[in-house]
Amino acid sequence: MTSLDARVSPAVTTGPIIGSHKVYLGDLQVPVRRIELTDGDHLDVYDTSGPYTDDSATIDVHSGLREKRADWIANRRPVGGALTQLAYARAGVLTEEMRFCALREGVEPELVREEVAAGRAVIPVNRRHPESEPAIIGKKFLVKINANIGNSAVTSSIAEEVDKLVWAIRWGADTVMDLSTGKRIHETREWLLRNSPVPIGTVPIYQALEKVDGDPTELSWEIYRDTVLEQCEQGVDYMTVHAGVLLRYVPLTAKRVTGIVSRGGSIMAAWCLAHHRESFLYRHFDELCDIFRSYDVTFSLGDGLRPGSIADANDAAQFAELRTLGELTAIARAKDVQVMIEGPGHVPMHKIVENVRLEEELCGEAPFYTLGPLATDIAPAYDHITSAIGAAMIAQAGTAMLCYVTPKEHLGLPDRDDVKTGVITYKIAAHAADLAKQHPHAQQRDDALSKARFEFRWIDQFNLALDPDTARSFHDQTLPAEPAKTA
Amino acid sequence: MTSLDARVSPAVTTGPIIGSHKVYLGDLQVPVRRIELTDGDHLDVYDTSGPYTDDSATIDVHSGLREKRADWIANRRPVGGALTQLAYARAGVLTEEMRFCALREGVEPELVREEVAAGRAVIPVNRRHPESEPAIIGKKFLVKINANIGNSAVTSSIAEEVDKLVWAIRWGADTVMDLSTGKRIHETREWLLRNSPVPIGTVPIYQALEKVDGDPTELSWEIYRDTVLEQCEQGVDYMTVHAGVLLRYVPLTAKRVTGIVSRGGSIMAAWCLAHHRESFLYRHFDELCDIFRSYDVTFSLGDGLRPGSIADANDAAQFAELRTLGELTAIARAKDVQVMIEGPGHVPMHKIVENVRLEEELCGEAPFYTLGPLATDIAPAYDHITSAIGAAMIAQAGTAMLCYVTPKEHLGLPDRDDVKTGVITYKIAAHAADLAKQHPHAQQRDDALSKARFEFRWIDQFNLALDPDTARSFHDQTLPAEPAKTA
Repeated sequence: MTSLDARVSPAVTTGPIIGSHKVYLGDLQVPVRRIELTDGDHLDVYDTSGPYTDDSATIDVHSGLREKRADWIANRRPVGGALTQLAYARAGVLTEEMRFCALREGVEPELVREEVAAGRAVIPVNRRHPESEPAIIGKKFLVKINANIGNSAVTSSIAEEVDKLVWAIRWGADTVMDLSTGKRIHETREWLLRNSPVPIGTVPIYQALEKVDGDPTELSWEIYRDTVLEQCEQGVDYMTVHAGVLLRYVPLTAKRVTGIVSRGGSIMAAWCLAHHRESFLYRHFDELCDIFRSYDVTFSLGDGLRPGSIADANDAAQFAELRTLGELTAIARAKDVQVMIEGPGHVPMHKIVENVRLEEELCGEAPFYTLGPLATDIAPAYDHITSAIGAAMIAQAGTAMLCYVTPKEHLGLPDRDDVKTGVITYKIAAHAADLAKQHPHAQQRDDALSKARFEFRWIDQFNLALDPDTARSFHDQTLPAEPAKTA
Repeated sequence: MTSLDARVSPAVTTGPIIGSHKVYLGDLQVPVRRIELTDGDHLDVYDTSGPYTDDSATIDVHSGLREKRADWIANRRPVGGALTQLAYARAGVLTEEMRFCALREGVEPELVREEVAAGRAVIPVNRRHPESEPAIIGKKFLVKINANIGNSAVTSSIAEEVDKLVWAIRWGADTVMDLSTGKRIHETREWLLRNSPVPIGTVPIYQALEKVDGDPTELSWEIYRDTVLEQCEQGVDYMTVHAGVLLRYVPLTAKRVTGIVSRGGSIMAAWCLAHHRESFLYRHFDELCDIFRSYDVTFSLGDGLRPGSIADANDAAQFAELRTLGELTAIARAKDVQVMIEGPGHVPMHKIVENVRLEEELCGEAPFYTLGPLATDIAPAYDHITSAIGAAMIAQAGTAMLCYVTPKEHLGLPDRDDVKTGVITYKIAAHAADLAKQHPHAQQRDDALSKARFEFRWIDQFNLALDPDTARSFHDQTLPAEPAKTA
C-alpha cells in the first residue's frame, strides 16, 4: 500500500444515521443498518456505508480501512489460470464474495454463482482492493447506484474527495467512480481506494490524457496500458473502456444535434480521426483482457457514442457501438473477465425499453449500467430529476446499476450537497425499480414506513426514510397532517 | 365581484422570466412566452403566467385582472338550455375558448371541439371567472399540471397565498387548487379568483366542514349545496367531489396498511358510517350536476379511496370507487357537464398503466387527473421526486393533468420555494410525457436547448431552461464543461 500523505487531512462524517446502528450478520460479517422502531420492531436495510457508521470502529483515514478480504484472497488458488469471480463461478466454486453478496441480498448463494457464471451479474473486486465489501450487480438483484466524484485541475482537494466518498456511501452509493483530472490523480485515487468499502471505478483514458498534456492525438496503446496497470495495482475494481468507438462510426455522429458528448468517446474519436487508424483500445482489447483477468478488474464497456440529447437517442451511431460492445463482451468473457455495459444518456421515455432489449440481445445480457437517462433536455439544474425518471424506468426494464446525475450536471462540478441529492434521488429510482420488479424484500421498507405514517409514529417515519435528517427538518410540529393528504 | 379587502397587500412577482417577453397571438390575443436566442432565432413557449409577466401590463391586485372573457360570455346563447363548453362542442359550435386553446396548443380548433364533445377533454371555465385564459385538459393535448396552495388555520395569510398563485403560474402551473381551511376561506378564494388567469379548483367539502366546526357527522346536503353555490358564484372553475365513496366500500379499506388517506374521502366515510346512509353527494348528484351546468363548472370526481401506500395500490376499494365514478361521469355528461377523474396516490411502477386503462374503460375516457403517483413510500422530503417518476409514467400512459407534489408532502405545508420546486418538477414530468407521446411540437425546446449546449451558447441554454435563474446560478464560469460529460 502506498503510504498516504500526512499533509492531507480529510474530515469524514462518522457515526450511524440517526435511529439506526450497524449490525454484522453471519460468519462473513455482512453489514446491515438496523433501524429500531418505537413499536419494538426493527428493520435491517442494505448498508453500503462501511465502518464509518459503526460506532465501535476506529477510523483513521491515513492508515485506511481494515483489509476485510485479505484472507479470502490469500487462501485462493486459480482455476484454469484465472482468479476472477467469473472463473470461479463457472467452475462451480462459491467464493466468499459470492456468499457475502447472497447474504446482503437475502438470496441463495447459488443464485449469485449462477448469475455470475452466466455473465448476467458481476462482482467487481480487484484483488488489490482487499478493503472492499463485495456487491453484486445484475438484474436479478437489488438495483445499484454509482456516484461520480473526483477533483479537477481547478477545484477541490484530495481531502474533499475523500469526504465526498464517505458522504456518498453514507447515503447509499453502491460504487463510486473517481473521475479526477489534473495533477494529483494517482494520489487522490490511492486515498479513495484505501478508504473505500465499495468498489471504485475509473476511466483510465482521463489519466492517460494527463500524461500527454491533454492532447488526444499523442495517446498510444503503451501509455494507456501502463496507466491501466498502474490503476490495477492500486486496486481499481472496474474501469470504463471506450473500446467500441470505431473509426467508421465517427461519421455517423456528424448530423447529430449534440455530436459526441462522452469525454472518453471524444478523446478516442479524435485519436482515430487524427491517425486514421482503428482505436488502439479495440486493436489491443485482447491484451487488456489479460491484464484485467490477472487482477479481476471488471470491464465497464463505455458508450462513447451515447446520445447527449433527446434528438440523438437510439440512433445509428449509438447502436453501431453497442453491437461492437457485444463482440468485445464475448472476447472478455472467453478470458473469464467480468463485463458491464454502459448506456445512455438522454433518451425520451418511449425509447428507453429498446435500449435494454438491444443491450441484452447484443451483449449476452451483461449487466447494463446507465447514466440516467435524462427523459428531457430542458431542465438544467434539475437533471437529477429528469434523469431519475429515465433511471427508474430503465431499471424496471432490467438495468442493473444506475449512474447518478446531480443538480449540477451540464453546469459544474457537484459539491457535497449535490452528491447527497444525487445519491438520494438515485436510491429512489433504484428502489422504485426494485418494487416494480417485485424484488422479494423491497416492499418491507415501504410497508414499515407507511404503517408508521398511518399510526402517526413520526419518529419511525423519519428513521425509516432514505434521508431521516431532511424529513425531520421539514416536519413542522405546528401543522396538522391533513393538508398534505388532500386532492 | 366582491370587493377585495384593502388591508390585504400581496406583493406578487412581476416582470418576464429572464431572456423572454410576452407576445400575444391572433385575434384572441393568445399569450406566449417568447425566448430570444443569441443566434437571432427565437422560441415561443406555452405561457400560463398571465399579465404578471407582461411588462406593459398594469398589475393591481386589489382590482383584479382584466375580464378577458367577458364579451365572449356575454354574447353567447344557450344550446339545449346549456351554456357549457361540452354543450357547445356537441352542438358543433366552436367557442372562443376552444379556438383560444387550439392556438395555445398549436392544433386545429376542430380537434379541440371533437375532444371536448367526446368528453375526452375539458375546458374548465366557470362563466363567473371571466379573468381566465382557457386551457384544455385532455390526453391529446399538452400534459397539464396543477399546483395546490391554500392557507390553513395556523399558517400563512391571504397575501402569501396570492403570492404563491402568481409564483406558481410564473413557473408553469396550468391550474391552481385552493385548499384553504380555517376562517377566511371565502375571502382567500375571492382574492385568488380575481387575480388568477388560470382555472381555479377547490374541494368544497373542506369549506362545508368549517361551517359545521369540523364535525363531519354534522354535514348535510343543504350545507354542502349552499357551499357549492357560493363557490360557483365566485367563479371556481372545477371542484373535487368525492361522490364515489359509498357506504359499502368503506369496509374494503379495513385491512389496508394506510386506510383512507384522502381528506375528502375520510370526511365522507365518517359521515356514511355515522349515519349508516349512502353519501349525500351520491344521492344528490343529479342536483349537483344542475348547479355545475348552470355555471359550466367542471367536475373533478375525487378518488376518496385512493391508496396512500404502495401496499394499498390497485386494491378492491380503489377500483370499486373508480367504477362508481364511471357511473357518475355518464350522469354528468348526460347533462352536458364536463368531467375529470382524479387518480392515485401511491402506486408502484408496474401497477401504473392498469390505472389508466381501467379509468379509460370505466369512465368513458374522461380526462384523468392524478396526484403523482408516488412510486415508493420511503422518501419523505423527496416526494416531489418519488412522484415525478410515477407522474411521468402515468402521463405517458394517458393522464391529462398531474397534480404536483412538493418536498413537504406528508411533512408540512409548502412554502414559496416548495411551490416552485413542485411546479418545475412537474413541468419536467409533463414535458417528458409530451415527448414520449410524440406531441408534435414538444421536442422543439429540447432541440433548441441541446443545440445551444453543443454550441456553448450558455446564455441561450439558460434562457431555454425551465428555470433559467437556477441554471445560471449553478453555472460556475471557472469550470470546464468536460467533467459533466463523463462516464
